[in-house]
Amino acid sequence: MIQQAQAALVESGDYSVRTDKRELIYEGRNKNLYHSEKPDYIIQEFKTDVPEEGKKRSKTKELSSLRNEISSYLFEHLESFRIPTHFVRRISETEMLVKRLEIIPLTVKVYNFGSGTLMKRFGVKEQTPLLFPVIEYFYKGMDRGSTWVNEYHVYAFGIATPEEFKQVNRLASKANAVLRGLCDRRQLQLAELQLELGRQKGSILLGDELSPLTCRFWDATKENKIERDRFTLDHDGTEEAISELRDRLQLKA
Amino acid sequence: MIQQAQAALVESGDYSVRTDKRELIYEGRNKNLYHSEKPDYIIQEFKTDVPEEGKKRSKTKELSSLRNEISSYLFEHLESFRIPTHFVRRISETEMLVKRLEIIPLTVKVYNFGSGTLMKRFGVKEQTPLLFPVIEYFYKGMDRGSTWVNEYHVYAFGIATPEEFKQVNRLASKANAVLRGLCDRRQLQLAELQLELGRQKGSILLGDELSPLTCRFWDATKENKIERDRFTLDHDGTEEAISELRDRLQLKA
Repeated sequence: MIQQAQAALVESGDYSVRTDKRELIYEGRNKNLYHSEKPDYIIQEFKTDVPEEGKKRSKTKELSSLRNEISSYLFEHLESFRIPTHFVRRISETEMLVKRLEIIPLTVKVYNFGSGTLMKRFGVKEQTPLLFPVIEYFYKGMDRGSTWVNEYHVYAFGIATPEEFKQVNRLASKANAVLRGLCDRRQLQLAELQLELGRQKGSILLGDELSPLTCRFWDATKENKIERDRFTLDHDGTEEAISELRDRLQLKA
Repeated sequence: MIQQAQAALVESGDYSVRTDKRELIYEGRNKNLYHSEKPDYIIQEFKTDVPEEGKKRSKTKELSSLRNEISSYLFEHLESFRIPTHFVRRISETEMLVKRLEIIPLTVKVYNFGSGTLMKRFGVKEQTPLLFPVIEYFYKGMDRGSTWVNEYHVYAFGIATPEEFKQVNRLASKANAVLRGLCDRRQLQLAELQLELGRQKGSILLGDELSPLTCRFWDATKENKIERDRFTLDHDGTEEAISELRDRLQLKA
């Protein structure tokens, strides 16, 4: 199925875009975006050195390359299930060509297990499977950081139309289901997933990255908490662990 | 229509419940609940003296009586639009007979204007009419106070079934629309509305009270902010202002 999706991309001419890096569109904490030769396509670079105070360590080129590889693999996997993403192709170790999106200013978090803030807020134990996945939305349009929202805020403040928000919801649920399925087959658990979405030519597409920076993958073969959570970049993830995760994910089923 | 609803209550025999106050079921900050003679009906008493630290003033009997009167009137008004509530009848100055509910541990807030926390969170100006009403849900099942939730938390943590939550949603929207309509005809604006709901014999009913303690009514005839907001009990509401609100609401259209 991945081959089919790639073939479709080739037919649609996406592969013909030249990828000389042009001027910077946006410099983020973890990624830079650059113009490509065509206005509908941009280059997403996974940043390699992010000197940040209070951080355990700065990111290395190896980690950036692993994020790029894992994201590319997972975007292709989602595309093979007809879940539209901004991914076109990987163009270098730390860069991918993506479709240019008009970003919807929402961060979408999906939880499948007791994890993160859910534990504190609902007294749910870590690693308890949830009866249903929990999807949370955060509006990031305010200067003072993001704030939780539900569908009513989204409509009242014009963040997205009801039709768009339904589609965001559907894509988040589907992406979570597909990635959970993949993880199950790899003896991984997808504890948390963080998504960003955007508009492109009247459709809603998944954007950003899908990597240990935005997803929390647990090793289902380990009992010990720390061992289990070693793939999460913001926690204990090391190049070695993330490289193991990459190999594990990409095993042919 | 109110007469019809009352007639229906008489027919259904609700008026036959004796209302001798029996033992206390629950002592709240603003209300006490007592058993009545029949297990399906309880007595809701609006507390008159609440010595609370840090409060501007304690509640008086007159305010409790006004809360009872306004709540009774608004519950009857909603019932006349086929919106089910726990209200049966007022039985004394500060007490009403209500149907016993199994409370759903959600506080439902409805906003029609820029008001309260919406202003801070979304930078919306006070008194700006919202494009669509905003409904917010807070789970109050935790010891450490309430926490915001959306439908996914409600399902994942078994707070209500999907069918129940849809009905909660529908009742909140309908109650808001009906009360907004009433307010419009009385030169009032319903800025915020706070609802609690519960289960009774397989149905979802509105519970609690509908008064200046849980609703923010603005005087649409006043330009001045303080004058406009003088009906809100937690702000500047005085016996005199609340009594004026009562008279204004109960004017025959």
